[in-house]
Amino acid sequence: MNDNAPDVLVLRADTHGLHARDYADLLADRLPDHDVRFAPTPTEERELVERATVVSGVDIDAALLERAENLRLFAGVAAGYNHLPLEQFAEMDVAVTNASGIHAPNIAEQVAGYILTFSRQLREGLHRQQRNEWRHYQAEELMGSTVTIVGLGAIGTAVTERLSGFDVETIGVRYTPEKGGPTDEVIGFDGPGFEAALARTDYLVVAAPLTDTTRRLLGTAEFQTLPPNARVINVGRGQIIDTDALVAALQQNQIEGAALDVTDPEPLPADHPLWDFENVLITPHNAGHSPKHWERLADIVAGNVTTLSETGDEASLRNLVQS
Amino acid sequence: MNDNAPDVLVLRADTHGLHARDYADLLADRLPDHDVRFAPTPTEERELVERATVVSGVDIDAALLERAENLRLFAGVAAGYNHLPLEQFAEMDVAVTNASGIHAPNIAEQVAGYILTFSRQLREGLHRQQRNEWRHYQAEELMGSTVTIVGLGAIGTAVTERLSGFDVETIGVRYTPEKGGPTDEVIGFDGPGFEAALARTDYLVVAAPLTDTTRRLLGTAEFQTLPPNARVINVGRGQIIDTDALVAALQQNQIEGAALDVTDPEPLPADHPLWDFENVLITPHNAGHSPKHWERLADIVAGNVTTLSETGDEASLRNLVQS
Repeated sequence: MNDNAPDVLVLRADTHGLHARDYADLLADRLPDHDVRFAPTPTEERELVERATVVSGVDIDAALLERAENLRLFAGVAAGYNHLPLEQFAEMDVAVTNASGIHAPNIAEQVAGYILTFSRQLREGLHRQQRNEWRHYQAEELMGSTVTIVGLGAIGTAVTERLSGFDVETIGVRYTPEKGGPTDEVIGFDGPGFEAALARTDYLVVAAPLTDTTRRLLGTAEFQTLPPNARVINVGRGQIIDTDALVAALQQNQIEGAALDVTDPEPLPADHPLWDFENVLITPHNAGHSPKHWERLADIVAGNVTTLSETGDEASLRNLVQS
Repeated sequence: MNDNAPDVLVLRADTHGLHARDYADLLADRLPDHDVRFAPTPTEERELVERATVVSGVDIDAALLERAENLRLFAGVAAGYNHLPLEQFAEMDVAVTNASGIHAPNIAEQVAGYILTFSRQLREGLHRQQRNEWRHYQAEELMGSTVTIVGLGAIGTAVTERLSGFDVETIGVRYTPEKGGPTDEVIGFDGPGFEAALARTDYLVVAAPLTDTTRRLLGTAEFQTLPPNARVINVGRGQIIDTDALVAALQQNQIEGAALDVTDPEPLPADHPLWDFENVLITPHNAGHSPKHWERLADIVAGNVTTLSETGDEASLRNLVQS
């Protein structure tokens, strides 16, 4: 394979503040028989992409893709892939993989952190600390609560695992409930089962991708069905929640709070009312950040590069989105 | 037993902002054959204590105790009991029980909340939220960390349980390591084992009572042995940590942070330097708060009242501290 071609090219765009060069180094470590290159400038990128059989990056623009005559695989570095030029990849017969699953441990940790911040009222503790005020306050207990997890992919499964030691009831929501899952109960999106689950949910965790089913899954009716002590946590996609309905539910005390790592719109505008609720936690689409991000991604992509060069079998690539 | 005597008297002092009258009501529900009384005023308390065989409260003052001629059991409502007049109880042949164990679930939740607040940098998220600032930041991952838990009683055991889904290594420290325990490893307080554990600890959780062994267990030498990324969490007793040494370790960046629900001195004075560290979380001895506090305590005390009246066997009382 190593005929002087830079068979693996890492594009310049960083992610989560992590330098893409580090990712290229990790790939090179794992692929001693391949020529892995990182292009530090647009000019080098344009030159190198012509010979690359594998390109990995956040996205690829049309001009660059046009030059990628030898491209066989585009390895996206995010879990989401709707932003990619999927049609053009298909026309060029380029396989596409994503980074699904590599963020699951850290996103699940963040979800558990949100839940415990709410139940133990840790934000109230910080407020009193800022005033140097030593004064007891009421907190809650998570034990015995019901946690409903929308989406039982890698993230929803990891959330369920992390909650396993807390003596909570878990309900999983997925397209194919007949498959079962790691939660105490598994239900579908349709019908009275979902509504009934909402009605007894203390923490509603959205860990699903954006699809026709999940788009605006949670709106006025759902917030009214949730009990008033419920908290809503979104680490999926902002558009799964009807933002205006969420704001109204919070203003009317219909739910007890929300933790949002993703919002609609995103980034959340500086004058948006969601920022200022005492019972809303906003993080800037950051739950996916892990210092192990590049390592886990390099494991997947290096494995795929090896598979591709040894077998040429695109169908057996890990995290295949489109072949 | 119900010879018109108020055989169970609940003293007025509230705890954690919870009204002692609610506790008396829960005890009365559980003891329909007993006369459970709550004394709303000091005068009534003085009258009722004379006939009580069981008194339950935070503490009892000397004047009140002198009048308690029929007292057989003092049921403390806290886990700690060093503040009680144990010698006078012994002279009067009064058994003493405490509330040990009833706080374990919520304290363990709070410990997990502290750990995740640190590893997911949730405080940084709150700071950016206060500025309406949507901007990514680096976070850490808990998975793969080593958590050392000092004390494997009810609280240490509950902490270990809650961490079971997070794929961390756990080390337990106890007086009698030969007993084993729920952690991956169990070591004693003495010798090179404890030091070696500190040297590879990411999170050090103190969940032990104050004893001759644990008093000032953590001082300058221990903070120097911990790696610079270590966080120290104290939900035991403030005096287990040498506060001046902790402040110095934080000022010199020898450790990465601390979460303290107990301090020395306590309450923490308003001008104490611990309040203002960006990497220190202070909560006002609040981890023990649970809305289920009275219920769990009433279960224990009602059981003990029944045991006492049916068998008279003090040795078989639950949570017996002194008989």
